[in-house]
Amino acid sequence: MILTVIGIGLIGGSIAKELKQKKFCNKVIGVDSSINHQKIALNNKIVDEIYSFKQAVQMSDIILISIPVDNTSKVLKEVLDLVDKQIVFDVGSIKEKVIQHVNAHPKRKNFVATHPIAGTEFSGPEAAHIGLFKGKINIICNKEESSKEAVEKISELYHILGMENIYMNAQDHDIHSAYVSHISHISSFCLALSVMDKEKDEKNILNMAGSGFESTVRLAKSNKEMWTPIFTENKSNILAVLNDYIEKLNSFKSAIKEDDYEKLNDLILQANGIKKILN
Amino acid sequence: MILTVIGIGLIGGSIAKELKQKKFCNKVIGVDSSINHQKIALNNKIVDEIYSFKQAVQMSDIILISIPVDNTSKVLKEVLDLVDKQIVFDVGSIKEKVIQHVNAHPKRKNFVATHPIAGTEFSGPEAAHIGLFKGKINIICNKEESSKEAVEKISELYHILGMENIYMNAQDHDIHSAYVSHISHISSFCLALSVMDKEKDEKNILNMAGSGFESTVRLAKSNKEMWTPIFTENKSNILAVLNDYIEKLNSFKSAIKEDDYEKLNDLILQANGIKKILN
Repeated sequence: MILTVIGIGLIGGSIAKELKQKKFCNKVIGVDSSINHQKIALNNKIVDEIYSFKQAVQMSDIILISIPVDNTSKVLKEVLDLVDKQIVFDVGSIKEKVIQHVNAHPKRKNFVATHPIAGTEFSGPEAAHIGLFKGKINIICNKEESSKEAVEKISELYHILGMENIYMNAQDHDIHSAYVSHISHISSFCLALSVMDKEKDEKNILNMAGSGFESTVRLAKSNKEMWTPIFTENKSNILAVLNDYIEKLNSFKSAIKEDDYEKLNDLILQANGIKKILN
Repeated sequence: MILTVIGIGLIGGSIAKELKQKKFCNKVIGVDSSINHQKIALNNKIVDEIYSFKQAVQMSDIILISIPVDNTSKVLKEVLDLVDKQIVFDVGSIKEKVIQHVNAHPKRKNFVATHPIAGTEFSGPEAAHIGLFKGKINIICNKEESSKEAVEKISELYHILGMENIYMNAQDHDIHSAYVSHISHISSFCLALSVMDKEKDEKNILNMAGSGFESTVRLAKSNKEMWTPIFTENKSNILAVLNDYIEKLNSFKSAIKEDDYEKLNDLILQANGIKKILN
């Protein structure tokens, strides 16, 4: 089995590394527009060879597209134009636009839309590592639009990475992503911006960072290449969440302003409900 | 050396446990209005004995006040009214109001205002554990208002817990706390509220939680008994930070609304500056 990885970053690189180690594939071909990424991927044995896009697709059995979401639709269509029996899958955190873009493509059934819910605040092939996916969830969207064979193969692939597969329609997926993942990133980015604006002396941040700040601000280390496209591609869902979130902050603000102990207690008690969900 | 802990929760309990293990004190007396906390503290050997407030203060060499910040000033004054040579310290995350309250007290010099920057989202004596403070920072405020002997003894105490002591005036401390700690909690509480409002099906939260949500929402498990008083006691600083924070969120919102890639890239790049500060 030959796997091609288009976009050798944290996710693409980690998938390649682990599937090779677990002998799901015997060769990984890398495609990446960055010469630097190509070099790191070869040096770190994430991929065996680097080929041009067209060659790679033709030589392989499975093609993984793991590039920023604003470019996924275009590249996916170009890949589908070239494939015969190959299976293609992507790993982006937005699914509806990508799926719509290839809806009418004659090779639509060769494509499986997936979103492995795993990652770190680091990026690039140098951040790729084995074990990233273990015990996590992979979401497969609109599986009825893919061939049974393709869904089975990709499900098996994620099983080998230690993931459980669940199924969802793309529209629901994008709403949930906005609520549970995208908003956390905006919240962290803004936290970092506020604190750095105010705390010109970095020592104060360091000294106070034991107080929970470090975990809430962790995601602010995430890169613009991945996140700017996510924010604009999932625009309508994210704007809805942002409005909700700002509304909640304003509730806190007015309760503090008015010394409204009862309202603050009530808001905190409601927020504590998350304990029942996340152990 | 006999230590009295008034308020046997996560912080008070952890300090007691570790100081006893490290033989800084040979007896710990507990004072707590909750019968349940008293029982847990005795059963878990966090304290050796439970006494009434008055008896405990008179029997001990050092008195730690570790209760919610809205009650600290009152209790501190009552303790200072009783002390002779005893040293008193508190561990609250707001310092200015507490210090002002006892400014003119004849025993002011016996009191050291401290804030060990450590904690978890859990509370109560059952959450107390050894090692909570290791490698973290303790802040001592307005040290020139305390006797040299008291500051030395309390600095030694925190050294034994594995902490580095730094010095700050109370006003600066409260501003930094608002920026680096209190806002993180509000941000987390509101994140939890937004997500739970929308995601009526808890499974969706669980399935998506691998995506960074878990770390940004961790602090939303914190309890109202501690945090409502912090928010109202540090009101003016917190309102300033909240306004900043909401302003940043609105910048993100308008950039997303207008598909302004350049502005989004710029905001994320600025936020990434936190990488240089926190490793």
